[in-house]
Amino acid sequence: MSILFERVAFIGIGLIGSSLARRIRRDGLAREIVACARRQATLDTVIKLKLADRVTTDPADAVKGADLVVIATPLSAYAEIGAAIGPALKKGAIVTDVGSVKSSAIRDLQPSLPEGVSFIAGHPVAGTEHSGPESGFAELFEGRWTILTPVDGSDAAAVERLQKLWEATGSKVVIMDPEHHDKVLAIVSHLPHLIAYTIVDTAQNLGTDLQSEVIEFSASGFRDFTRIAASDPVMWRDVFLANREAVLEMLQRFTEDLTALQRAIRRGEGDTLQDVFTRTRAIRRAIIEAKQA
Amino acid sequence: MSILFERVAFIGIGLIGSSLARRIRRDGLAREIVACARRQATLDTVIKLKLADRVTTDPADAVKGADLVVIATPLSAYAEIGAAIGPALKKGAIVTDVGSVKSSAIRDLQPSLPEGVSFIAGHPVAGTEHSGPESGFAELFEGRWTILTPVDGSDAAAVERLQKLWEATGSKVVIMDPEHHDKVLAIVSHLPHLIAYTIVDTAQNLGTDLQSEVIEFSASGFRDFTRIAASDPVMWRDVFLANREAVLEMLQRFTEDLTALQRAIRRGEGDTLQDVFTRTRAIRRAIIEAKQA
Repeated sequence: MSILFERVAFIGIGLIGSSLARRIRRDGLAREIVACARRQATLDTVIKLKLADRVTTDPADAVKGADLVVIATPLSAYAEIGAAIGPALKKGAIVTDVGSVKSSAIRDLQPSLPEGVSFIAGHPVAGTEHSGPESGFAELFEGRWTILTPVDGSDAAAVERLQKLWEATGSKVVIMDPEHHDKVLAIVSHLPHLIAYTIVDTAQNLGTDLQSEVIEFSASGFRDFTRIAASDPVMWRDVFLANREAVLEMLQRFTEDLTALQRAIRRGEGDTLQDVFTRTRAIRRAIIEAKQA
Repeated sequence: MSILFERVAFIGIGLIGSSLARRIRRDGLAREIVACARRQATLDTVIKLKLADRVTTDPADAVKGADLVVIATPLSAYAEIGAAIGPALKKGAIVTDVGSVKSSAIRDLQPSLPEGVSFIAGHPVAGTEHSGPESGFAELFEGRWTILTPVDGSDAAAVERLQKLWEATGSKVVIMDPEHHDKVLAIVSHLPHLIAYTIVDTAQNLGTDLQSEVIEFSASGFRDFTRIAASDPVMWRDVFLANREAVLEMLQRFTEDLTALQRAIRRGEGDTLQDVFTRTRAIRRAIIEAKQA
Protein backbone atom coordinates (compact mmCIF):
# COMPACT_ATOMS: atom_id res chain seq x y z
CA MET A 1 0.00 0.00 0.00
CA SER A 2 1.14 3.54 -0.67
CA ILE A 3 0.64 6.67 1.40
CA LEU A 4 -2.78 8.24 0.74
CA PHE A 5 -2.59 11.12 3.23
CA GLU A 6 0.29 12.90 4.90
CA ARG A 7 -1.38 13.60 8.22
CA VAL A 8 -4.67 12.15 9.48
CA ALA A 9 -6.37 13.57 12.58
CA PHE A 10 -8.96 11.58 14.51
CA ILE A 11 -11.46 13.52 16.59
CA GLY A 12 -12.74 10.76 18.85
CA ILE A 13 -11.04 7.39 18.73
CA GLY A 14 -13.26 4.56 19.94
CA LEU A 15 -14.10 1.24 18.25
CA ILE A 16 -14.44 2.66 14.73
CA GLY A 17 -11.79 5.42 14.89
CA SER A 18 -9.19 3.14 16.40
CA SER A 19 -9.91 0.36 13.90
CA LEU A 20 -9.29 2.79 11.04
CA ALA A 21 -6.17 4.13 12.77
CA ARG A 22 -4.87 0.58 13.22
CA ARG A 23 -5.40 -0.19 9.55
CA ILE A 24 -3.73 3.06 8.47
CA ARG A 25 -0.73 2.23 10.68
CA ARG A 26 -0.52 -1.41 9.66
CA ASP A 27 -0.55 -0.65 5.94
CA GLY A 28 1.28 2.68 6.00
CA LEU A 29 -1.67 4.58 4.50
CA ALA A 30 -0.63 7.87 6.16
CA ARG A 31 2.65 9.32 7.34
CA GLU A 32 1.34 10.67 10.64
CA ILE A 33 -1.68 10.06 12.89
CA VAL A 34 -2.95 12.58 15.45
CA ALA A 35 -5.62 11.50 17.95
CA CYS A 36 -7.92 13.76 19.90
CA ALA A 37 -10.25 12.69 22.72
CA ARG A 38 -11.97 14.55 25.52
CA ARG A 39 -10.78 12.23 28.25
CA GLN A 40 -7.12 11.77 29.10
CA ALA A 41 -7.80 8.10 29.96
CA THR A 42 -8.76 7.45 26.33
CA LEU A 43 -5.57 9.13 25.13
CA ASP A 44 -3.50 7.10 27.59
CA THR A 45 -4.90 3.95 26.00
CA VAL A 46 -4.12 5.35 22.53
CA ILE A 47 -0.53 5.98 23.59
CA LYS A 48 -0.18 2.57 25.21
CA LEU A 49 -1.49 0.87 22.06
CA LYS A 50 0.70 3.11 19.84
CA LEU A 51 -2.31 4.07 17.72
CA ALA A 52 -1.15 7.65 17.10
CA ASP A 53 2.04 9.70 16.76
CA ARG A 54 0.60 12.56 18.75
CA VAL A 55 -2.38 12.99 21.09
CA THR A 56 -4.25 16.03 22.35
CA THR A 57 -7.51 16.93 24.10
CA ASP A 58 -7.88 20.05 21.91
CA PRO A 59 -9.70 19.48 18.57
CA ALA A 60 -8.36 22.69 17.01
CA ASP A 61 -4.82 21.65 17.89
CA ALA A 62 -5.43 18.15 16.50
CA VAL A 63 -6.52 19.25 13.03
CA LYS A 64 -3.72 21.76 12.40
CA GLY A 65 -1.90 20.78 9.24
CA ALA A 66 -4.01 17.63 8.79
CA ASP A 67 -4.89 16.53 5.23
CA LEU A 68 -7.69 14.33 6.50
CA VAL A 69 -9.84 14.84 9.57
CA VAL A 70 -11.97 11.89 10.70
CA ILE A 71 -14.71 12.73 13.18
CA ALA A 72 -15.52 9.57 15.12
CA THR A 73 -17.43 10.79 18.18
CA PRO A 74 -21.10 10.37 19.12
CA LEU A 75 -23.31 12.52 16.85
CA SER A 76 -24.31 15.01 19.55
CA ALA A 77 -20.74 16.34 19.67
CA TYR A 78 -20.58 17.24 15.97
CA ALA A 79 -21.82 20.85 16.08
CA GLU A 80 -19.39 21.79 18.83
CA ILE A 81 -16.50 20.02 17.10
CA GLY A 82 -17.31 21.80 13.83
CA ALA A 83 -17.20 25.17 15.56
CA ALA A 84 -13.91 24.28 17.26
CA ILE A 85 -12.02 22.93 14.24
CA GLY A 86 -13.44 25.22 11.52
CA PRO A 87 -10.94 28.07 11.94
CA ALA A 88 -7.97 25.70 12.41
CA LEU A 89 -8.42 23.57 9.28
CA LYS A 90 -5.80 23.64 6.55
CA LYS A 91 -6.93 24.83 3.13
CA GLY A 92 -7.51 21.77 0.95
CA ALA A 93 -8.17 19.50 3.92
CA ILE A 94 -10.81 16.77 3.68
CA VAL A 95 -13.15 16.34 6.63
CA THR A 96 -15.21 13.17 7.03
CA ASP A 97 -17.05 11.30 9.76
CA VAL A 98 -18.10 7.75 10.57
CA GLY A 99 -21.48 8.40 12.21
CA SER A 100 -24.62 6.32 11.70
CA VAL A 101 -26.87 9.21 10.64
CA LYS A 102 -25.85 11.32 7.66
CA SER A 103 -28.38 14.14 7.25
CA SER A 104 -27.77 15.34 10.81
CA ALA A 105 -24.00 15.04 10.32
CA ILE A 106 -24.17 17.34 7.31
CA ARG A 107 -26.53 19.73 9.09
CA ASP A 108 -24.31 19.96 12.17
CA LEU A 109 -20.87 20.13 10.55
CA GLN A 110 -21.15 21.78 7.13
CA PRO A 111 -21.97 25.34 8.33
CA SER A 112 -18.79 25.60 10.44
CA LEU A 113 -16.35 24.48 7.77
CA PRO A 114 -14.54 27.19 5.78
CA GLU A 115 -14.31 27.44 2.01
CA GLY A 116 -11.50 25.36 0.54
CA VAL A 117 -12.26 22.47 2.92
CA SER A 118 -14.22 19.47 1.62
CA PHE A 119 -16.67 17.75 3.91
CA ILE A 120 -17.74 14.31 2.73
CA ALA A 121 -19.91 12.45 5.24
CA GLY A 122 -19.26 8.72 5.52
CA HIS A 123 -20.44 5.62 7.35
CA PRO A 124 -18.55 2.34 7.55
CA VAL A 125 -21.33 -0.22 8.15
CA ALA A 126 -19.36 -2.34 10.57
CA GLY A 127 -18.96 -2.66 14.29
CA THR A 128 -19.18 -4.88 17.31
CA GLU A 129 -20.95 -4.52 20.65
CA HIS A 130 -17.67 -3.41 22.24
CA SER A 131 -16.52 0.19 22.54
CA GLY A 132 -13.39 2.19 23.26
CA PRO A 133 -10.00 2.33 21.49
CA GLU A 134 -8.96 -1.02 23.00
CA SER A 135 -11.82 -2.76 21.13
CA GLY A 136 -10.73 -1.82 17.61
CA PHE A 137 -8.97 -4.09 15.12
CA ALA A 138 -7.46 -3.49 11.69
CA GLU A 139 -9.71 -6.04 9.93
CA LEU A 140 -13.04 -4.60 11.11
CA PHE A 141 -14.01 -3.19 7.70
CA GLU A 142 -13.02 -6.14 5.53
CA GLY A 143 -15.85 -7.24 3.25
CA ARG A 144 -18.20 -4.64 4.79
CA TRP A 145 -19.72 -1.62 3.09
CA THR A 146 -18.73 1.99 3.60
CA ILE A 147 -21.38 4.46 2.50
CA LEU A 148 -20.26 7.93 1.39
CA THR A 149 -22.95 10.61 1.10
CA PRO A 150 -21.60 13.59 -0.87
CA VAL A 151 -24.11 16.34 -1.69
CA ASP A 152 -24.47 18.79 -4.60
CA GLY A 153 -21.26 20.74 -4.83
CA SER A 154 -19.11 18.15 -3.02
CA ASP A 155 -15.57 17.92 -4.40
CA ALA A 156 -15.34 14.82 -6.64
CA ALA A 157 -11.60 14.50 -6.06
CA ALA A 158 -12.13 14.43 -2.29
CA VAL A 159 -14.76 11.72 -2.65
CA GLU A 160 -12.32 9.70 -4.73
CA ARG A 161 -9.49 10.02 -2.21
CA LEU A 162 -11.79 8.98 0.60
CA GLN A 163 -13.05 6.05 -1.43
CA LYS A 164 -9.44 4.91 -1.96
CA LEU A 165 -8.81 5.03 1.77
CA TRP A 166 -11.86 2.93 2.63
CA GLU A 167 -11.11 0.44 -0.13
CA ALA A 168 -7.61 0.13 1.31
CA THR A 169 -9.21 -1.03 4.59
CA GLY A 170 -10.86 -3.91 2.71
CA SER A 171 -14.24 -2.19 2.59
CA LYS A 172 -16.55 -1.92 -0.41
CA VAL A 173 -17.67 1.67 -1.06
CA VAL A 174 -21.07 2.87 -2.22
CA ILE A 175 -22.27 6.45 -2.84
CA MET A 176 -25.72 7.29 -1.51
CA ASP A 177 -28.03 10.22 -0.93
CA PRO A 178 -27.86 11.17 2.81
CA GLU A 179 -31.64 10.96 3.40
CA HIS A 180 -31.83 7.61 1.65
CA HIS A 181 -28.93 6.36 3.80
CA ASP A 182 -30.81 7.36 6.94
CA LYS A 183 -33.93 5.50 5.84
CA VAL A 184 -32.04 2.31 4.93
CA LEU A 185 -30.08 2.34 8.18
CA ALA A 186 -33.26 2.98 10.18
CA ILE A 187 -34.55 -0.45 9.15
CA VAL A 188 -31.32 -2.49 9.01
CA SER A 189 -29.66 -1.07 12.08
CA HIS A 190 -31.47 1.51 14.18
CA LEU A 191 -34.78 -0.33 14.59
CA PRO A 192 -33.07 -3.68 15.34
CA HIS A 193 -31.02 -1.98 18.03
CA LEU A 194 -34.07 -0.27 19.52
CA ILE A 195 -35.95 -3.57 19.64
CA ALA A 196 -33.02 -5.45 21.13
CA TYR A 197 -32.62 -2.80 23.83
CA THR A 198 -36.35 -3.01 24.54
CA ILE A 199 -36.65 -6.77 24.89
CA VAL A 200 -33.60 -6.99 27.13
CA ASP A 201 -35.13 -4.23 29.25
CA THR A 202 -38.47 -6.06 29.34
CA ALA A 203 -36.70 -9.18 30.59
CA GLN A 204 -34.88 -7.14 33.20
CA ASN A 205 -38.14 -5.62 34.42
CA LEU A 206 -39.60 -9.06 35.15
CA GLY A 207 -37.94 -9.10 38.56
CA THR A 208 -35.05 -10.89 40.18
CA ASP A 209 -36.47 -14.41 40.30
CA LEU A 210 -37.10 -14.75 36.60
CA GLN A 211 -33.94 -12.79 35.72
CA SER A 212 -31.49 -15.52 36.71
CA GLU A 213 -33.43 -17.94 34.54
CA VAL A 214 -33.42 -15.50 31.64
CA ILE A 215 -29.63 -15.53 31.88
CA GLU A 216 -29.32 -19.32 32.16
CA PHE A 217 -31.64 -20.11 29.26
CA SER A 218 -30.59 -17.25 26.99
CA ALA A 219 -29.18 -19.65 24.38
CA SER A 220 -32.67 -20.08 22.94
CA GLY A 221 -32.89 -16.73 21.12
CA PHE A 222 -32.57 -14.03 23.74
CA ARG A 223 -28.76 -14.15 23.70
CA ASP A 224 -28.48 -12.56 20.24
CA PHE A 225 -30.52 -9.61 21.45
CA THR A 226 -28.33 -9.09 24.49
CA ARG A 227 -25.27 -8.84 22.28
CA ILE A 228 -26.85 -6.03 20.26
CA ALA A 229 -28.21 -4.41 23.43
CA ALA A 230 -24.69 -4.21 24.87
CA SER A 231 -23.71 -1.57 22.28
CA ASP A 232 -22.49 1.86 23.34
CA PRO A 233 -25.36 3.71 25.13
CA VAL A 234 -24.30 7.29 24.28
CA MET A 235 -23.65 6.55 20.63
CA TRP A 236 -27.07 4.93 20.33
CA ARG A 237 -28.91 7.63 22.25
CA ASP A 238 -27.56 10.08 19.69
CA VAL A 239 -28.50 7.89 16.72
CA PHE A 240 -32.16 7.74 17.77
CA LEU A 241 -32.35 11.47 18.41
CA ALA A 242 -30.56 12.33 15.15
CA ASN A 243 -32.59 9.94 12.98
CA ARG A 244 -35.87 10.43 14.80
CA GLU A 245 -38.20 10.69 11.82
CA ALA A 246 -36.96 7.66 9.90
CA VAL A 247 -36.80 5.56 13.08
CA LEU A 248 -40.33 6.51 14.11
CA GLU A 249 -41.63 5.65 10.65
CA MET A 250 -40.00 2.20 10.64
CA LEU A 251 -41.15 1.64 14.21
CA GLN A 252 -44.71 2.41 13.18
CA ARG A 253 -44.54 -0.18 10.39
CA PHE A 254 -42.99 -2.74 12.75
CA THR A 255 -45.71 -2.16 15.35
CA GLU A 256 -48.42 -2.71 12.75
CA ASP A 257 -46.84 -5.97 11.64
CA LEU A 258 -46.36 -7.12 15.25
CA THR A 259 -49.98 -6.29 16.07
CA ALA A 260 -51.13 -8.42 13.12
CA LEU A 261 -49.14 -11.39 14.45
CA GLN A 262 -50.42 -10.79 17.97
CA ARG A 263 -53.96 -10.90 16.63
CA ALA A 264 -53.23 -14.14 14.75
CA ILE A 265 -51.86 -15.73 17.93
CA ARG A 266 -54.88 -14.62 19.99
CA ARG A 267 -57.29 -15.97 17.39
CA GLY A 268 -55.34 -19.17 16.86
CA GLU A 269 -54.78 -18.41 13.15
CA GLY A 270 -51.93 -20.80 12.46
CA ASP A 271 -51.92 -20.29 8.70
CA THR A 272 -51.17 -16.57 9.03
CA LEU A 273 -48.25 -17.31 11.33
CA GLN A 274 -46.84 -20.05 9.12
CA ASP A 275 -47.07 -17.83 6.02
CA VAL A 276 -45.06 -15.05 7.63
CA PHE A 277 -42.51 -17.45 9.13
CA THR A 278 -42.01 -19.09 5.74
CA ARG A 279 -41.53 -15.77 3.90
CA THR A 280 -38.83 -14.59 6.28
CA ARG A 281 -36.57 -17.54 5.48
CA ALA A 282 -35.98 -16.19 1.97
CA ILE A 283 -34.28 -13.02 3.18
CA ARG A 284 -31.83 -15.04 5.26
CA ARG A 285 -30.85 -17.04 2.19
CA ALA A 286 -30.31 -13.82 0.22
CA ILE A 287 -28.04 -12.46 2.97
CA ILE A 288 -25.99 -15.64 2.93
CA GLU A 289 -25.68 -15.36 -0.85
CA ALA A 290 -24.62 -11.71 -0.53
CA LYS A 291 -21.87 -12.95 1.85
CA GLN A 292 -23.04 -10.63 4.63
CA ALA A 293 -23.87 -13.51 6.99
CA MET B 1 -20.29 -44.47 28.31
CA SER B 2 -22.49 -47.42 29.14
CA ILE B 3 -25.83 -48.43 27.66
CA LEU B 4 -28.70 -46.53 29.29
CA PHE B 5 -31.59 -47.95 27.21
CA GLU B 6 -31.98 -51.09 25.16
CA ARG B 7 -34.17 -49.65 22.42
CA VAL B 8 -34.92 -45.95 21.77
CA ALA B 9 -37.68 -44.92 19.34
CA PHE B 10 -37.77 -41.44 17.84
CA ILE B 11 -41.13 -40.15 16.65
CA GLY B 12 -40.01 -37.28 14.43
CA ILE B 13 -36.32 -36.90 13.71
CA GLY B 14 -35.36 -33.36 12.70
CA LEU B 15 -32.66 -31.10 14.10
CA ILE B 16 -33.19 -32.03 17.76
CA GLY B 17 -34.17 -35.67 17.34
CA SER B 18 -31.31 -36.43 14.98
CA SER B 19 -28.79 -34.65 17.23
CA LEU B 20 -29.85 -36.84 20.15
CA ALA B 21 -29.76 -39.94 17.93
CA ARG B 22 -26.27 -39.05 16.75
CA ARG B 23 -25.06 -38.65 20.32
CA ILE B 24 -26.66 -41.95 21.38
CA ARG B 25 -24.95 -43.71 18.46
CA ARG B 26 -21.60 -42.03 18.94
CA ASP B 27 -21.38 -42.90 22.61
CA GLY B 28 -23.25 -46.22 22.57
CA LEU B 29 -25.97 -44.99 24.93
CA ALA B 30 -28.55 -47.42 23.50
CA ARG B 31 -28.38 -50.78 21.81
CA GLU B 32 -30.91 -50.00 19.09
CA ILE B 33 -32.46 -46.87 17.54
CA VAL B 34 -35.78 -46.85 15.68
CA ALA B 35 -36.80 -43.72 13.74
CA CYS B 36 -40.32 -42.80 12.67
CA ALA B 37 -41.24 -39.92 10.35
CA ARG B 38 -44.31 -39.15 8.31
CA ARG B 39 -42.41 -38.55 5.09
CA GLN B 40 -40.36 -41.21 3.37
CA ALA B 41 -37.86 -38.53 2.23
CA THR B 42 -36.97 -37.87 5.86
CA LEU B 43 -36.47 -41.58 6.50
CA ASP B 44 -34.32 -41.88 3.38
CA THR B 45 -32.02 -39.21 4.86
CA VAL B 46 -32.00 -41.06 8.19
CA ILE B 47 -30.96 -44.26 6.42
CA LYS B 48 -28.31 -42.47 4.35
CA LEU B 49 -26.85 -40.87 7.47
CA LYS B 50 -27.09 -44.19 9.39
CA LEU B 51 -28.93 -42.49 12.26
CA ALA B 52 -31.16 -45.48 13.05
CA ASP B 53 -31.16 -49.26 12.90
CA ARG B 54 -34.72 -49.39 11.68
CA VAL B 55 -37.14 -46.84 10.17
CA THR B 56 -40.91 -46.76 9.76
CA THR B 57 -43.69 -44.32 8.94
CA ASP B 58 -45.98 -45.97 11.53
CA PRO B 59 -45.66 -44.59 15.09
CA ALA B 60 -47.29 -47.65 16.70
CA ASP B 61 -44.83 -49.91 14.90
CA ALA B 62 -41.92 -47.68 15.94
CA VAL B 63 -42.60 -47.80 19.68
CA LYS B 64 -43.12 -51.57 19.95
CA GLY B 65 -40.65 -52.95 22.46
CA ALA B 66 -38.99 -49.58 22.99
CA ASP B 67 -37.73 -48.71 26.49
CA LEU B 68 -37.59 -45.01 25.63
CA VAL B 69 -39.79 -43.11 23.20
CA VAL B 70 -38.66 -39.58 22.24
CA ILE B 71 -41.34 -37.45 20.58
CA ALA B 72 -39.56 -34.81 18.51
CA THR B 73 -42.25 -33.50 16.14
CA PRO B 74 -43.98 -30.10 16.02
CA LEU B 75 -46.35 -29.70 18.99
CA SER B 76 -49.55 -29.89 16.93
CA ALA B 77 -48.88 -33.56 16.17
CA TYR B 78 -48.70 -34.66 19.82
CA ALA B 79 -52.35 -35.57 20.45
CA GLU B 80 -52.54 -37.74 17.35
CA ILE B 81 -49.21 -39.40 18.14
CA GLY B 82 -50.34 -40.10 21.70
CA ALA B 83 -53.49 -41.83 20.44
CA ALA B 84 -51.48 -43.86 17.93
CA ILE B 85 -48.71 -45.08 20.23
CA GLY B 86 -50.69 -45.49 23.49
CA PRO B 87 -51.92 -49.06 22.84
CA ALA B 88 -48.54 -50.18 21.42
CA LEU B 89 -46.30 -49.05 24.28
CA LYS B 90 -44.39 -51.63 26.32
CA LYS B 91 -45.16 -51.75 30.03
CA GLY B 92 -42.40 -49.89 31.87
CA ALA B 93 -41.54 -47.74 28.86
CA ILE B 94 -40.54 -44.11 29.36
CA VAL B 95 -42.05 -41.54 27.00
CA THR B 96 -40.55 -38.07 26.71
CA ASP B 97 -40.56 -35.18 24.25
CA VAL B 98 -38.31 -32.27 23.26
CA GLY B 99 -40.93 -29.59 22.54
CA SER B 100 -40.68 -25.92 23.49
CA VAL B 101 -43.99 -25.76 25.40
CA LYS B 102 -44.54 -28.13 28.30
CA SER B 103 -48.08 -27.61 29.62
CA SER B 104 -49.58 -28.32 26.19
CA ALA B 105 -47.31 -31.34 25.77
CA ILE B 106 -48.62 -32.84 29.01
CA ARG B 107 -52.22 -31.94 28.14
CA ASP B 108 -51.99 -33.53 24.68
CA LEU B 109 -50.01 -36.69 25.49
CA GLN B 110 -50.75 -37.78 29.05
CA PRO B 111 -54.40 -38.88 28.53
CA SER B 112 -53.49 -41.40 25.79
CA LEU B 113 -50.69 -43.14 27.66
CA PRO B 114 -51.58 -46.36 29.51
CA GLU B 115 -50.81 -47.19 33.10
CA GLY B 116 -47.32 -48.58 33.62
CA VAL B 117 -45.85 -46.08 31.16
CA SER B 118 -44.04 -43.00 32.48
CA PHE B 119 -44.39 -39.75 30.62
CA ILE B 120 -41.78 -37.13 31.56
CA ALA B 121 -41.91 -34.00 29.40
CA GLY B 122 -38.55 -32.48 28.52
CA HIS B 123 -36.99 -29.60 26.64
CA PRO B 124 -33.35 -29.35 25.59
CA VAL B 125 -32.77 -25.59 25.33
CA ALA B 126 -30.55 -25.77 22.28
CA GLY B 127 -30.93 -25.44 18.55
CA THR B 128 -29.89 -23.68 15.39
CA GLU B 129 -31.85 -21.98 12.62
CA HIS B 130 -31.49 -25.12 10.47
CA SER B 131 -33.97 -27.96 10.39
CA GLY B 132 -34.24 -31.57 9.22
CA PRO B 133 -32.22 -34.68 10.15
CA GLU B 134 -29.26 -33.53 8.04
CA SER B 135 -28.82 -30.45 10.29
CA GLY B 136 -28.24 -32.30 13.56
CA PHE B 137 -24.89 -32.86 15.26
CA ALA B 138 -23.84 -34.89 18.31
CA GLU B 139 -22.46 -31.85 20.21
CA LEU B 140 -25.61 -29.71 20.01
CA PHE B 141 -26.49 -30.11 23.70
CA GLU B 142 -23.05 -29.62 25.21
CA GLY B 143 -23.04 -26.96 27.90
CA ARG B 144 -26.75 -26.21 27.31
CA TRP B 145 -29.64 -26.82 29.67
CA THR B 146 -32.26 -29.51 29.39
CA ILE B 147 -35.40 -28.79 31.38
CA LEU B 148 -37.46 -31.75 32.64
CA THR B 149 -40.98 -31.01 33.88
CA PRO B 150 -42.33 -34.00 35.83
CA VAL B 151 -45.70 -33.51 37.54
CA ASP B 152 -47.25 -34.91 40.74
CA GLY B 153 -47.17 -38.67 40.47
CA SER B 154 -44.36 -38.82 37.90
CA ASP B 155 -42.05 -41.80 38.40
CA ALA B 156 -38.85 -40.60 40.12
CA ALA B 157 -36.81 -43.46 38.65
CA ALA B 158 -37.91 -42.51 35.13
CA VAL B 159 -36.88 -38.88 35.74
CA GLU B 160 -33.51 -40.08 36.94
CA ARG B 161 -32.91 -42.28 33.87
CA LEU B 162 -33.83 -39.43 31.55
CA GLN B 163 -31.59 -37.05 33.45
CA LYS B 164 -28.68 -39.52 33.01
CA LEU B 165 -29.34 -39.64 29.27
CA TRP B 166 -29.32 -35.86 28.88
CA GLU B 167 -26.26 -35.51 31.05
CA ALA B 168 -24.56 -38.04 28.81
CA THR B 169 -25.15 -35.66 25.87
CA GLY B 170 -23.16 -32.97 27.70
CA SER B 171 -26.28 -31.10 28.82
CA LYS B 172 -26.98 -29.73 32.28
CA VAL B 173 -30.39 -30.81 33.60
CA VAL B 174 -32.84 -28.80 35.66
CA ILE B 175 -36.27 -29.82 36.99
CA MET B 176 -39.02 -27.23 36.61
CA ASP B 177 -42.76 -26.82 36.93
CA PRO B 178 -44.34 -26.99 33.42
CA GLU B 179 -46.21 -23.67 33.70
CA HIS B 180 -43.11 -21.92 34.99
CA HIS B 181 -41.10 -23.38 32.10
CA ASP B 182 -43.59 -21.96 29.62
CA LYS B 183 -43.36 -18.50 31.16
CA VAL B 184 -39.55 -18.46 31.20
CA LEU B 185 -39.34 -19.70 27.63
CA ALA B 186 -41.92 -17.14 26.51
CA ILE B 187 -39.50 -14.34 27.37
CA VAL B 188 -36.12 -15.94 26.50
CA SER B 189 -37.16 -17.71 23.33
CA HIS B 190 -40.71 -17.32 22.05
CA LEU B 191 -40.93 -13.52 22.17
CA PRO B 192 -37.45 -13.04 20.64
CA HIS B 193 -38.46 -15.32 17.78
CA LEU B 194 -41.75 -13.52 17.26
CA ILE B 195 -39.98 -10.16 17.16
CA ALA B 196 -37.28 -11.40 14.81
CA TYR B 197 -39.89 -12.81 12.44
CA THR B 198 -41.76 -9.51 12.58
CA ILE B 199 -38.85 -7.19 11.83
CA VAL B 200 -37.66 -9.34 8.95
CA ASP B 201 -41.19 -9.29 7.60
CA THR B 202 -41.39 -5.50 8.04
CA ALA B 203 -38.19 -5.13 6.02
CA GLN B 204 -39.57 -7.43 3.36
CA ASN B 205 -42.76 -5.38 3.12
CA LEU B 206 -40.78 -2.22 2.31
CA GLY B 207 -40.68 -3.14 -1.36
CA THR B 208 -38.11 -4.38 -3.81
CA ASP B 209 -35.92 -1.28 -4.03
CA LEU B 210 -35.13 -1.04 -0.37
CA GLN B 211 -34.96 -4.82 -0.01
CA SER B 212 -31.68 -5.29 -1.87
CA GLU B 213 -30.15 -2.63 0.36
CA VAL B 214 -31.50 -4.33 3.46
CA ILE B 215 -29.62 -7.43 2.37
CA GLU B 216 -26.36 -5.62 1.55
CA PHE B 217 -26.23 -3.63 4.79
CA SER B 218 -27.55 -6.33 7.08
CA ALA B 219 -24.26 -6.53 8.99
CA SER B 220 -25.32 -3.59 11.11
CA GLY B 221 -27.79 -5.43 13.36
CA PHE B 222 -30.49 -6.84 11.10
CA ARG B 223 -28.45 -9.93 10.26
CA ASP B 224 -28.85 -11.47 13.73
CA PHE B 225 -32.61 -11.20 13.40
CA THR B 226 -32.65 -12.92 10.02
CA ARG B 227 -30.81 -15.88 11.50
CA ILE B 228 -33.49 -16.33 14.16
CA ALA B 229 -36.25 -15.68 11.61
CA ALA B 230 -34.96 -18.53 9.44
CA SER B 231 -36.07 -21.10 12.06
CA ASP B 232 -38.56 -23.83 11.19
CA PRO B 233 -41.97 -22.22 10.36
CA VAL B 234 -44.22 -25.13 11.38
CA MET B 235 -42.44 -25.74 14.67
CA TRP B 236 -42.74 -22.05 15.55
CA ARG B 237 -46.35 -21.73 14.45
CA ASP B 238 -47.14 -24.50 16.92
CA VAL B 239 -45.10 -22.91 19.71
CA PHE B 240 -47.06 -19.65 19.52
CA LEU B 241 -50.41 -21.42 19.42
CA ALA B 242 -49.47 -23.80 22.27
CA ASN B 243 -48.02 -21.10 24.53
CA ARG B 244 -50.49 -18.40 23.58
CA GLU B 245 -51.22 -16.98 27.02
CA ALA B 246 -47.63 -16.60 28.21
CA VAL B 247 -46.51 -15.20 24.83
CA LEU B 248 -49.33 -12.64 24.76
CA GLU B 249 -48.48 -11.55 28.29
CA MET B 250 -44.79 -11.04 27.49
CA LEU B 251 -45.70 -9.33 24.23
CA GLN B 252 -47.90 -6.91 26.15
CA ARG B 253 -45.02 -6.01 28.47
CA PHE B 254 -42.65 -5.62 25.51
CA THR B 255 -45.09 -3.34 23.69
CA GLU B 256 -45.42 -1.12 26.76
CA ASP B 257 -41.65 -0.81 27.05
CA LEU B 258 -41.27 -0.13 23.33
CA THR B 259 -43.96 2.53 23.46
CA ALA B 260 -42.11 4.26 26.30
CA LEU B 261 -38.93 4.37 24.20
CA GLN B 262 -40.88 5.56 21.15
CA ARG B 263 -42.27 8.39 23.25
CA ALA B 264 -38.77 9.30 24.48
CA ILE B 265 -37.48 9.42 20.90
CA ARG B 266 -40.38 11.58 19.75
CA ARG B 267 -39.91 14.00 22.64
CA GLY B 268 -36.12 14.02 22.31
CA GLU B 269 -35.63 12.68 25.85
CA GLY B 270 -32.03 11.51 25.55
CA ASP B 271 -31.60 10.74 29.26
CA THR B 272 -34.40 8.16 29.23
CA LEU B 273 -32.82 6.42 26.24
CA GLN B 274 -29.34 6.44 27.71
CA ASP B 275 -30.59 5.06 31.04
CA VAL B 276 -32.26 2.08 29.38
CA PHE B 277 -29.31 1.43 27.05
CA THR B 278 -26.92 1.49 29.99
CA ARG B 279 -29.02 -0.93 32.08
CA THR B 280 -29.20 -3.52 29.32
CA ARG B 281 -25.41 -3.91 29.21
CA ALA B 282 -25.46 -5.56 32.63
CA ILE B 283 -27.51 -8.53 31.48
CA ARG B 284 -25.07 -9.23 28.65
CA ARG B 285 -22.21 -9.35 31.15
CA ALA B 286 -24.19 -11.78 33.32
CA ILE B 287 -24.78 -14.05 30.31
CA ILE B 288 -21.10 -14.07 29.48
CA GLU B 289 -20.31 -14.94 33.10
CA ALA B 290 -22.90 -17.76 33.00
CA LYS B 291 -21.03 -19.08 29.92
CA GLN B 292 -24.19 -19.01 27.80
CA ALA B 293 -22.75 -16.44 25.34
